[in-house]
Parts: sequence; C-alpha cells; structure tokens
Amino acid sequence: MKKSLLALALTSSAVFANEGMWMPKQLPEIAPQLKAAGLELDPASLTKLTEFPMAAVVSLGGCSASFVSPQGLVATNHHCAYGSIAHNATAENDILTNGFLARSMDEELQARPGSRIFVTKAVQEVTDKVIDANTAKLSGKKRVDAIEANQKALVAECEKDEGHRCTVSAFYGSLEYYMIKQLEIKDVRLVHAPPSGVGKFGGDTDNWMWPRHTGDYSFYRAYVSPEGKSADFSQDNVPYQPDFHLTIAKQGVKEGDFVMALGYPGRTNRHRLPSEVAETFEWSYPTVVQDYRDALDIIARETADNKDAELKYASRVAGLNNYMKNRQGMLDSFADSDLLARKQAEHAELTAWVNSSRDNKKAYAKDLAAIEKLLAERHSNDRKEHLLDAAAPRLLGTARALYRLAQENTKPDNERKAGFQERDLPKFKSYVAAMERNFDVSVEKALDLHDLKKYAAQPKKLRDSHFDKALGVKDNMSEAQLQALIDSWYANTSLTSLESREALLTATPEQFAQSDDVFVKAAVALYKQDRKREADEEELAGKIQQAYASYMRAKIAFMHSQGKAVYPDANSTLRVTFGNVKGRAHGTEDGNAWAPFTTLRGITQKATGEGEFNAPQKQLDAINAKQYGAYKVDSLNSVPVNYLATLDITGGNSGSAVLNSKAELVGLAFDGTLDSIISDWDFNPANTRSIQVDHRFMLWQMELDGADNLLKEMGVK
Amino acid sequence: MKKSLLALALTSSAVFANEGMWMPKQLPEIAPQLKAAGLELDPASLTKLTEFPMAAVVSLGGCSASFVSPQGLVATNHHCAYGSIAHNATAENDILTNGFLARSMDEELQARPGSRIFVTKAVQEVTDKVIDANTAKLSGKKRVDAIEANQKALVAECEKDEGHRCTVSAFYGSLEYYMIKQLEIKDVRLVHAPPSGVGKFGGDTDNWMWPRHTGDYSFYRAYVSPEGKSADFSQDNVPYQPDFHLTIAKQGVKEGDFVMALGYPGRTNRHRLPSEVAETFEWSYPTVVQDYRDALDIIARETADNKDAELKYASRVAGLNNYMKNRQGMLDSFADSDLLARKQAEHAELTAWVNSSRDNKKAYAKDLAAIEKLLAERHSNDRKEHLLDAAAPRLLGTARALYRLAQENTKPDNERKAGFQERDLPKFKSYVAAMERNFDVSVEKALDLHDLKKYAAQPKKLRDSHFDKALGVKDNMSEAQLQALIDSWYANTSLTSLESREALLTATPEQFAQSDDVFVKAAVALYKQDRKREADEEELAGKIQQAYASYMRAKIAFMHSQGKAVYPDANSTLRVTFGNVKGRAHGTEDGNAWAPFTTLRGITQKATGEGEFNAPQKQLDAINAKQYGAYKVDSLNSVPVNYLATLDITGGNSGSAVLNSKAELVGLAFDGTLDSIISDWDFNPANTRSIQVDHRFMLWQMELDGADNLLKEMGVK
Repeated sequence: MKKSLLALALTSSAVFANEGMWMPKQLPEIAPQLKAAGLELDPASLTKLTEFPMAAVVSLGGCSASFVSPQGLVATNHHCAYGSIAHNATAENDILTNGFLARSMDEELQARPGSRIFVTKAVQEVTDKVIDANTAKLSGKKRVDAIEANQKALVAECEKDEGHRCTVSAFYGSLEYYMIKQLEIKDVRLVHAPPSGVGKFGGDTDNWMWPRHTGDYSFYRAYVSPEGKSADFSQDNVPYQPDFHLTIAKQGVKEGDFVMALGYPGRTNRHRLPSEVAETFEWSYPTVVQDYRDALDIIARETADNKDAELKYASRVAGLNNYMKNRQGMLDSFADSDLLARKQAEHAELTAWVNSSRDNKKAYAKDLAAIEKLLAERHSNDRKEHLLDAAAPRLLGTARALYRLAQENTKPDNERKAGFQERDLPKFKSYVAAMERNFDVSVEKALDLHDLKKYAAQPKKLRDSHFDKALGVKDNMSEAQLQALIDSWYANTSLTSLESREALLTATPEQFAQSDDVFVKAAVALYKQDRKREADEEELAGKIQQAYASYMRAKIAFMHSQGKAVYPDANSTLRVTFGNVKGRAHGTEDGNAWAPFTTLRGITQKATGEGEFNAPQKQLDAINAKQYGAYKVDSLNSVPVNYLATLDITGGNSGSAVLNSKAELVGLAFDGTLDSIISDWDFNPANTRSIQVDHRFMLWQMELDGADNLLKEMGVK
Repeated sequence: MKKSLLALALTSSAVFANEGMWMPKQLPEIAPQLKAAGLELDPASLTKLTEFPMAAVVSLGGCSASFVSPQGLVATNHHCAYGSIAHNATAENDILTNGFLARSMDEELQARPGSRIFVTKAVQEVTDKVIDANTAKLSGKKRVDAIEANQKALVAECEKDEGHRCTVSAFYGSLEYYMIKQLEIKDVRLVHAPPSGVGKFGGDTDNWMWPRHTGDYSFYRAYVSPEGKSADFSQDNVPYQPDFHLTIAKQGVKEGDFVMALGYPGRTNRHRLPSEVAETFEWSYPTVVQDYRDALDIIARETADNKDAELKYASRVAGLNNYMKNRQGMLDSFADSDLLARKQAEHAELTAWVNSSRDNKKAYAKDLAAIEKLLAERHSNDRKEHLLDAAAPRLLGTARALYRLAQENTKPDNERKAGFQERDLPKFKSYVAAMERNFDVSVEKALDLHDLKKYAAQPKKLRDSHFDKALGVKDNMSEAQLQALIDSWYANTSLTSLESREALLTATPEQFAQSDDVFVKAAVALYKQDRKREADEEELAGKIQQAYASYMRAKIAFMHSQGKAVYPDANSTLRVTFGNVKGRAHGTEDGNAWAPFTTLRGITQKATGEGEFNAPQKQLDAINAKQYGAYKVDSLNSVPVNYLATLDITGGNSGSAVLNSKAELVGLAFDGTLDSIISDWDFNPANTRSIQVDHRFMLWQMELDGADNLLKEMGVK
C-alpha cells in the first residue's frame, strides 16, 4: 500500500513541467514540455552557448544579468548592483537614495572593486579528467588533493587564453564535473540605478512577499581594452561589444504566457539525503537565523547615528536580512510540511531498489551505508566548531587569508592551493580594497564582543586552546575584560588601514612572522593548527565525495529506470527554467489568492513617504495623473509593475533575463515568495512562484527618470 | 459615437445574468439565465409563495430568515438576532460573549420585545385600487391622502384575517403597488447563538471585508397559540409548524456552483435620477457619515466604564458602525467611479427617446421636466431641516409619537393616519418597553449636547422658533448653558421610566395637555407646527409620486423597447437573486485576488484572544487539532468558513437562505464587500460579491458547541 502511494506521488510530481533548472544541453530531452508550455523557438537553439540568446546571458558572480545593447549595456537587478551603488554613494551625494543616471558614457561610475561580468564561452564535461583512473583509486585527503590537482591543471590549461576565467564545477553531488570557460570582464561601470524608493521599494518588509511593487533593475556596462580584451579599469577602455544581445519585447506578457529565465542559480538541495535535511532544518538554519538576527540588531544599534557607517554596512545589512528571511521562511515551511518524512520514504524506496538486485547491491550498497556515517561525522564537526568560527574577528580572517596567500606564494603556481594562485590575486586585492567601504571599527568591535562572549562562556574543554592563546582569551573573563581584550586588539593592529592590508598582499611569510600586529601574529600562531583542521576536513571530504557520487549514481539510475529526466542541483552554472505567467489560488492570508500582476495602484497604496516605502514624489505624481504612456495595459487599467511566474529559480538567478516565447526580454527575475523558497529543498508546484519586474514598468520608470539615452540604446525609443 | 458607445455599455451589462433582485413572479421571464447558471428546479416552482421552497422563507422585519425544521426553527444571521441576544445578556450572564444554547424548548428565551417573524402568504397587485380613477385625477397632498386612504382600506380588509399583517408596497418608484399578506408571528424565542467570538468574529474591522471568517448564524423559534394562530408570548404557546421548511444540503458548494438567495432586500436605488445621485453622494451620505462617527465616539466615551450602558447600546453601536462603513464605502467607490456622469448620460438617452416621438413626448415629457424641479425642492428642505431634526432629543421623539397616537386615537380607526392605527399599537408598546434596555440618560445627554450645540450655533433665522420656544433654546447660549438646559430637561421628565411611558400609550390629548413633563409639554406645543410641516411634505410627496411614476413608466418602456427585463428596486419584499460561487480577480490590495472560500486556518491567523478577534479557545483547540469531522473539504484541507458568490443582495437580505441548484440550504448570506456596496446604486458585476457563512462551518461549530439537539432537529444527525 505504502509503496503504491509513493509511486503515485512521484509520477504526479513529474507531470509538473515547471520544475527543473535545466542545463542548456538537456533542453532537447524536455522539448515536448517546452513546446507545450508555449516556446516558439527550437529548444536546440537554446543549447548553443555562443549563439543567441544564450550568448547574451552573463554572470556577475552571485547574480545573473544580460546584455541588452550592442554596446555592452547589462541589465540586472537593483539588489545585484546594490554594492556598487552603495560604494559610490556618500552622505553628500547619496545616489543610493536618489538614484543615478549617466547621461553619457563618461559619466558612468566604476562599480565596486572586484565587480566582474562573466560571459560563458564554453562548457565541457571533464569528469574523466577530474576523476581519472588514478584518482578513482584514492580515498580521503589524497583523493581531494588529486581532484584539486586535476582541476587546477585543467583550469591552468584553459586560462592560457588570456582574459578568461575557467572553473571546474561539480554536478550531481560531484558525480560529474564540467569545465566552464568564461570571458572575465574586469572593467565594470555603473550606468543607471533608480532611486532606492523604486529599486528597493518595500525593502525588507516586502522582501520574499507578494503583492510586490519593486523596480528591481539597474544597468552596468562592460568595458574592455581598445583591442577588445579583458582589462582592468582604464580611461582608454571601450565598451565591450557582445556577439549577441537581448532585444526588448514590444508586447508585454499576459496571464498564461510562456516565459523562461536564463541565469546562474546558486545552490539547491533537491538531491540531498534525509540526514542532511534533518541537520539543516533542525540545527543549521535555526542557528544561522539567530546569529544573523543578532548581527542585524548590533549593526542597527551601532550605525544609528552614523550615516557613514550605515552606508558602509548597507549592503551587508541587505544581505543578512535577505538571507535571514529566506532561512526563516524555509524553517516555517518545513515545520508545516512532511518533507523529512517524505525524503526518508523516498530514500527507503531507493534503498529497496538498490537491494532489489545483486548488481545494484554490488554497485551501490556499501556507499549508501557509508555516506550516512560520513555525513554524521561532518555534522558533528560543524556543531563543535560553530562558536569558534564565529568568534574569529573579521581582521583575523583577513590576516589568515593573506598569510596563507604568502605561504602559498612560496610554491610554484600550479602547486598552490586552489584559491591562492596567481589567478586569484585580483580577488584578494579587491577584497582588501573594498574594506575601505564596508568596515567600521566600532561596529566590528560590537559584533566581536557578541560572538566572543558566547565562545568564551564555554567550558575550557569545548574551547580551542590555540585560538585562546593566540587571541588572549582566558577562563572566566567578564564582559568588561572581553571588551578590554577586544579594545586591545584594535589598538594593536594596523589592518584597519588600506595601506597595511595592501602591504600584506605581497609580504613574505618571514615578514608576517616579524609583524607585531595582533591579528597578523595570531594568524601566524594559528597557521599550523588551521592547516591540520583543513587536512582533517579534506580527509572527510574525500570520503564523502566518493560515497556521495555513488549515491547520486544510484539515484539517477533509479529515476532513469522510471523514465524520468534528472536535472542537477543548481551550482552557479548557466541554467534554463521555463514556465508561465501565473497567479496563485491561495495567497499568504487565508481567503486571499494572488493575482498574476501588480500595478502602479499598489505603489500609491503602499507609499508612506519614508523608510522602505519611500516612493519618489515624482513617481506618485505621475501615477496620480495616470501618465501611463505607452505602457498601460487596458485589462489592468494601469501599468504592470511585477508579475508572478511558475519559474524554478533560486538565489543567483537574481537579475536573470526573463524571455518570452520568442526569446525577447519581458522582465527580470528578482525574487521568490516566502512559502515557496523551501523549493530549494523540495519543489512544490502549487506554491512556487518567481517574482519578476515587468519590463514595461522598468521602461515607464526610466522614461520618468529621463533615461532616454538608455531607452534609445536598447532600441525602445 | 457617444450614442453607440452607450448602447454597447447597456447591452453588455445585460449579459451579466447575476444582476437583479427578481420578484418571484418574474423568474419565468429569465428562465434561460437561471438554467444557464445551473438551476435544476423549474423556475416556475419558485413563483409559488405558499409552496416549497418559497414558503419556508420569512422576514424578521429588516432581516431575512428561513424555517429549517418542522417545529418552526428559524435560521438567520447572528447580527439579525443580535438585539435579542443583547437584550437577554447581563453583566452576570453575558450570553452575547459566551453564546447561548437552549438544550430543550423550555430553555428558550423571549426575543427582544417587538421581534416578529413574518411569513409571506400572498402577493397581489393592487395598483388599480391604490391609484383608482379618482385618485389619478388628484395632485399634491390630496393625492397622498387618497393613496393612503386606499391603502388603509386594502390593508384593513386584508387584516380581517386575524394574525396577519398586510402591507401595500410601492414598486418601480410608486408606479406599481402590491399588497403583501403575511402571517405575523409574535412569540419569537431565541434558541441558539454562538459566542460573539464566532458570530461576530472580526467585528467592525472585518465588516464588509474579505477575507472573512464570521460564523454569522443564530436560531429563533416561532411560537403560536395551541390552535396554531398568531399569539403574544404565552407559556401555553406551541412551536409553529410551517407548511414547508428547508433541508440542509448533504454536500456543500464548490467554486462555480449555482446558488440563489431568497430574502427581503431592503432598498436599492438603481432606477434613481441623476439629481438624486448627486444629492446623495455630495451631501446626504457625507453628512450622515460624520453624524454617525460623532455619535459612536460619544457612546464609546460615555459607556467606557459602564458595562450596563455598554450592553444597552451594543445593538445601536453595531448598527451605526455597519451603516457608517457602508456609506463610507459607497462614498469611496463613488469618488473612484463615473457613476454620476453615466447616470446623466443614460438619462440624456432616455430624454432623447422621450422626445423622439410625439406619443412618447405627450406621455412623459412634462413629468420628466417636473420631477427635477420637485426633487430639487425636496433636497433643499432636507438640508434646511437636518440640524433641527438632529437636535430633537430621543424622549421628545417618544413624546411626539405618543401624543400623535393620542390625537389619532380620537378618530375612527380607518380615518387615523397610517402608522397610528389599532394594528400599530403593539409596535408602540414594544418600542416603549424596549427603551428599558436601550436607553441611558448619561449617554443621551451627551448625544443631545453634541447635536444641540450645532443647532443652537446657527443664526436665529436658520433656527426654528417653535422648537426653540418649546425646548428653551435661546440666542447665544454657551456650552455650559446648553448643558444646564439639557440637565433641566431630564430633571423634569418621567419618560425615563417605563411606567410613565406606558401610561402615555393610553392617555388622551387632554391628559397630555395637562402634563408638566418637559418633553410632553414640548410635544404638545410643537404639534400644530409638526402637522404643518407634515402637510407641506405630503403636498410635495404627492407631486413627486405622480411625476416619479411617470418617469419610471418612461424608463420601463424605454428598456422594454430594447428587449430588456426590468426588475424593481428592492423594497423589503420577497426577492430571488441567483448566481454562482466565485472568487474575484482583484482583491482589496493591488496584486491580491480573492479565493472563493476561507477556511478555519484564517481564524487562527486572525485570532488575538481579545476584542473583535476573540475566537473561543475551544474552537482554536479544535482547529489546531484538525478536528474537522465530517465537514472537511479536501481541496481546502480544512473546513470552509465563508464563501463569495455573485448574488445581488443588499441590507435586509441579511440572514437569507442560500440554496443550491436543488433548493437545499448551503449557507446564509450575511454581507457584501465594501467596494461592491455601491451596487445599491450601480451594479458592478466585476466587483459585486455577497459573503455567505458556509453551512458546513455552521454545523461544525454547532457540533463543537454541543448543539446536538438542533442538529438532530434539522435532520443533520
């Protein structure tokens, strides 16, 4: 009885065509579903990464974006460009609040240091090279080292093509590996952002919510050398001319229309084991939600009367809020769901299938048992080290990273630890530089005190003696003593200055050893212990990789035996999700449903003239005067602002181009809804909706903001 | 161009089959629409007032209700029985808060004095008798007097059948008259009411709102003499056995299902002239909203620490709030609408049609011009007399009414003014008695001061010299002087005692004239002037009746010429409206829509444990334990609580039985929604929804409250 019910559940979930973050190459496998949903293009045309439309889709590293003009204009979300807007905002010229528009290219502003635009040029399966015959025989740390060495070699070879960034990404829980080659555009400039009363309208209150009225769009421009190569910022650089760019749809979408989002979803966990589900929802997420809530309280308190500090932490506050609400939403959904029980039942089905034949048993049974034990070990370690890791001040992290870099610099490049190679230096440089605009001593001291109190309150045997010694933590310290200790750290460090941090970028290990900076000294003192912890972790990781790949192989074989296509969990690589514009039969409040579109009316309903709902007066005046221009939709009797669709997106998809059935731009995906983000673990077709900013609202607002130069460049005017 | 657009608008509004409060006899005219909506019965069967199901439908005078058992059990809304529940509630035994259940008939409580159940027995057109050949020749007051005399004669003849109540009602703006004969049940008893945390859950906050979660039901029982005749309350009386009663549907409704509401809608204004629309929305409603808001503030202040006074005014407060929110809702809708412009355009069409032929012109043109002038005169009078009428204290109204009664009593019954005949005496008796439970001197003094201040602040020439003299109002009185004046009134009246009021019920005019009660003296002093005002009003009313009937005749002829059936405006007579269970594409908040059903989940979402959202703990426990019993709807994963339907209802329909396609009870209508009550003037099919309590919720809650005796009686258990 139980078995047949489960089988039924699996089959019925398979008919919902909208689940899936498909690798472009998989699309022909699901061509019938794409056609049924309304795609007018040949699905095969979406598999070609260097042709239209996929070639227009780019990654910002953590966000998605797309070229929307032949002159390298890039559309993404306001919240994706938020760091760059905040970086350029000052108390005197608060472009975060007021918005920004470069009326010509020479008015464009440098994006936040480290900003990148990645244009995917090739994706190649490299599983056999990462797990070659020799590696396959290894286990534990040796396996991890061999995998890393193979990856580095592949990356190094690929990156010989200058100006490119190559990455080897694991798919299906490290069962498969693909190498992704991307053009790395390093000169990124801010072109246009609406006022935060548009781009962040609703703020954290509306975040993950519907109805929604956020103009979450901004524009960057990609610049390259006059020769067309990737180059650091220079006045001589010229706009990058992409091979293909998206065009703006003349017609907007309506309820039921086909849409697809092209972007770089960050991470999902649909193939996770039941024990991972339990650990995540019963310990990890509740812990992190509490930590972030505390951090937000502290930052709010410390920046209350300090506009400069507030701007410095604006981006982090936005990130923490976003993450916290996301996790809390998942926890709420989890509490209401039978997810764990279902996962356990599904896993029992898989286990039964593995045990159902001698071949299956031989192939998978051992690893299926092993993975549970290994994950239990990892979870136990994570819990043990949580307070210790949290207690490390941010500047200690900086010192540790830079000392590690110095250590790795003593080796030939290809022997250095991944993440500390020549190719990684710019990342360190921008990290060090960006601290000028995101670090404030008084805020950090307050955060340190909070974390250190919790760590220091533990009995000695639960604390780390190396850490205590390096940082000066002793038994039974009072809060005043901890405060004094923290004050002494900051009195004895120069890492708060850009010059000092930059000096360490090229310092030798010997120079580190001679430093009397408290954090540098601690980093040096902890180095050996840090490496031991890393080695232990890698030993475990190697074992897990091996067993996990085997588990995934079993799961895929099991699903294929039922005739089902399997898409890999998201891993920040280019994916396609498709669906339809669609409201929802049940809203947040009992008795409400969700209409597919919001309109300008909702902006005036929500506007309060301040804080998170500070719609610009100019915008309100235009709405009240019903100045809808060409963007009015008669059936809505207004301009559509945001819309819902059945797209399967997650973090990282932010800024994704949303295209209609002819691959014309009809909006930007920017959010999901609170009760559907559990979809990262458990896709629920009844609940899951993505939220898009309607391109008609974007154009309407840009017209209002006088961005005619950009409208012309995009071919709208 | 304008003409064709208008024609289009009229035609398209005609396709929405759900507009219309149809007289039962009209239903065969719209049989195709009824069938299309899903009715399974023969529409002709609904025209028979003394057969199933119409015979089960009753009026409470201001509310609708229906027999639901062979033993005279009557289901209606909680807010319709509210006065009776409040009347029986005391600080010691607060059945308003805690609910009430008679576990056997001898535990049933007498309803509030004056409570009636009217069972319609016959409806007969009497236009030719009301406007007979002689009357047709008259105008002004003479016409009014003749109409009244004819009506009284008809009523007197009809009421020879003892225990019956006969009424002549005007239809189509007094173009047609029908006599309605009703059995008048005078022994009404309260059987069951849920706690106010169920029956009034959401209170004034949720009133006219969706999503809604109100268990707005209560039960009365009709009692008659052992011989089965209408009788005043007596222990010897027995339950009335109706010829037919409604049965409870085994299956509840789902989205799209046919429903119809059978009840007594009070008043609509769909056929009003543009000048009436303007006066109402530009002066009358805004004025009354302000007056009621003031009154509510005063009552709240004065009853803040007085539980007894609070209970006395509970029913009035509920009424004022309800009315105020209704009118404010209409004002808001009016402000957003083109209603007046449309009315004017429609009236221009009608005028053009009248002028389009010699016959039409001859028949209607003069009256069409006259009505405008007459209405302007009435509006002017209303504005002039507003503050004067408001300034009259409640006890002066009592004294005036009783003195008038004494004056009329000196004439033969058939010559007395309508409303002051023998047949009206019980109404006066219960009015006088009910004041014991709805009158508090301190509250009335505060209300009087508020109103008198506004009246007295007017220049002398705008005041009424008779009123000033009778009540002691002088020029330039300070607030303290007015307060002293009011105090002197109440120090010199005995009308606050039931005994004194009852004595006046049978007093002669001479006895009134000898009274030294301040209000009685004022009533006597004002009598002549009051009669003059009345005569003036009747002179105008007679002219208006004549012209208005002619306008309506023109309008009906015009609509018939376009092939449209015309239903009369609501006038508290039995009507049928039909439609379907249906949510709404747009909700209150931009981006939200309305689901057709709410569920128990919403109760827990809204419950606060106090005030308007004070859901009983027992109920919350049952919801949290998912004790859905037989009433769970799988698709909702809960018990449905309220639902929306496209029924055309208005005030007076409260308590209406809502029946499915087989005429089985599936709920009680109890409200509309705030942006659709403008439908009283201008039916809007996109907005208009009625709100019903789902019978499954009613049964679920009754089971929870242990009302097994009633469930058995209704055949549910």
